[in-house]
Amino acid sequence: MKLIDGKKIANEIKEEIALEVQKIKEKGGKTPHLAAVIVGHDGASETYVGHKEKACAQVGFNSTVLRFEDNITEEQMLQEVNKLNNNPDIDGFILQLPLPKHISEQKIIEAIDPKKDVDGFHPINLGRMVIGLPAYVSATPAGIMELFKRYEIETSGKDVVVIGRSNIVGKPMTILLGQKANPGNATVTMAHSRTKNLKEVVAKADIIIAALGVAEFLTADMVKEGATIIDVGITRVKSDKTKSGWKLLGDVKFDEVSEKCEYITPVPGGVGPMTIVSLMLNTLKAAKGEIYPKE
Amino acid sequence: MKLIDGKKIANEIKEEIALEVQKIKEKGGKTPHLAAVIVGHDGASETYVGHKEKACAQVGFNSTVLRFEDNITEEQMLQEVNKLNNNPDIDGFILQLPLPKHISEQKIIEAIDPKKDVDGFHPINLGRMVIGLPAYVSATPAGIMELFKRYEIETSGKDVVVIGRSNIVGKPMTILLGQKANPGNATVTMAHSRTKNLKEVVAKADIIIAALGVAEFLTADMVKEGATIIDVGITRVKSDKTKSGWKLLGDVKFDEVSEKCEYITPVPGGVGPMTIVSLMLNTLKAAKGEIYPKE
Repeated sequence: MKLIDGKKIANEIKEEIALEVQKIKEKGGKTPHLAAVIVGHDGASETYVGHKEKACAQVGFNSTVLRFEDNITEEQMLQEVNKLNNNPDIDGFILQLPLPKHISEQKIIEAIDPKKDVDGFHPINLGRMVIGLPAYVSATPAGIMELFKRYEIETSGKDVVVIGRSNIVGKPMTILLGQKANPGNATVTMAHSRTKNLKEVVAKADIIIAALGVAEFLTADMVKEGATIIDVGITRVKSDKTKSGWKLLGDVKFDEVSEKCEYITPVPGGVGPMTIVSLMLNTLKAAKGEIYPKE
Repeated sequence: MKLIDGKKIANEIKEEIALEVQKIKEKGGKTPHLAAVIVGHDGASETYVGHKEKACAQVGFNSTVLRFEDNITEEQMLQEVNKLNNNPDIDGFILQLPLPKHISEQKIIEAIDPKKDVDGFHPINLGRMVIGLPAYVSATPAGIMELFKRYEIETSGKDVVVIGRSNIVGKPMTILLGQKANPGNATVTMAHSRTKNLKEVVAKADIIIAALGVAEFLTADMVKEGATIIDVGITRVKSDKTKSGWKLLGDVKFDEVSEKCEYITPVPGGVGPMTIVSLMLNTLKAAKGEIYPKE
């Protein structure tokens, strides 16, 4: 069994980005700038935004966090998005979800200028990705593709099962791994809550992407000998063995599955760190006008 | 074996549309209007556009065909698209592909106002479809979904194999059948030219969507007893048994496969007529502002 060390790879990529940012600055270029919008005081959202700010600092980006109270109206949110769209210093920005219920997330997402949509949530970025055009790909699938690349894990012709069909993980993952590209060219099956015989479907997979959000769902009896396992799940459960009183569990029962597989991502330290670094990569692309040429 | 009679269903839908158009006109509403742009003198393109014009006439739509010579420039094409975008009488329009090589199809497609993109080729429509938002879905997948609906073929929990990964059939079909919807909720595998063990993959499918474009590729030994077969392929081959000297073949070896399966679409008369009728349905939706509200 080989561990896919997402934390290590993420750190390597951060160093690469930092080096590139340094060069941009040396040439008198503009410092890449990511903004995050956070509404209300959700603890998890605060934590995620904090991680993103920290990553920006590590790679030498400027970052701005815009905080709004829960009572902000949809109209005001749209105005704020518009300001970010029109602010030439901001290369990309993200909305930390969820938003309060009186605001349509979809409406706000669609108001983001696709050129600055570094989360890849705007339908036009999703559509461009499906067609195979340059696009911001959402952070988790992009991070997983980067792991395949860096570990030189062959995906062409492999049977992949993606468990989960969310708009930000399962569906893009299915499309990306099935694309005519490298990584890609896999025979991908998208499984989900309505899949009958899930065990049977998964057991034939060369590569399993577990993204259903059920702690330790994937057990050794569901996994083929020598398979590659990518664990996207993060569930926080109480624990009397950690200082914080909590521990993180993935969708994979790591101890038993790791004994059977060739490659596996741990939780934490696998896909998670890659997600944040993907956002940094997207922001760098935005700053360089790589996806959409700068006007 | 039950034949899925696409021609019959298409005619029923055309009658339904005609009735609705009649009602719109009786109420003093605007007649739905589809435009088609054709460049050069490709025989197949002429035939397709001819079929679309005829269908428009049958359902009571106005139709306009804009013909341009092969030497039209990209810039002129963009201007023509822009005129159509801004013409309030045109509800939707299509570009008959292929375009001459000196014109970027993707650039022209992206210039189409998504509200008038009744072919569903614009990335924003594809992206909205992936997210599950109202969108123009490209005609072939939309037509197949309609066949599942009208024949009440259960897709939920079924193992579906889509053979082919084109942007206008394979990929949207994979997403649509995997969506949380009815039809939908299937466990979908997208297979393609790089799929190893294709025979094995296909043989376990409850439903096969054959869209690879290889005449009579799917043979009886690849099909499970009682499967449902949707044949998207159309290949024209020489024949001394027809008046025209040509006949159309699907991707499925009909004679032998039909004996094993529960449902099957013939070629011609299966998916083909549904494709055109889907375009008519999309145009009606455009006229009614069903996908994007009219301003």
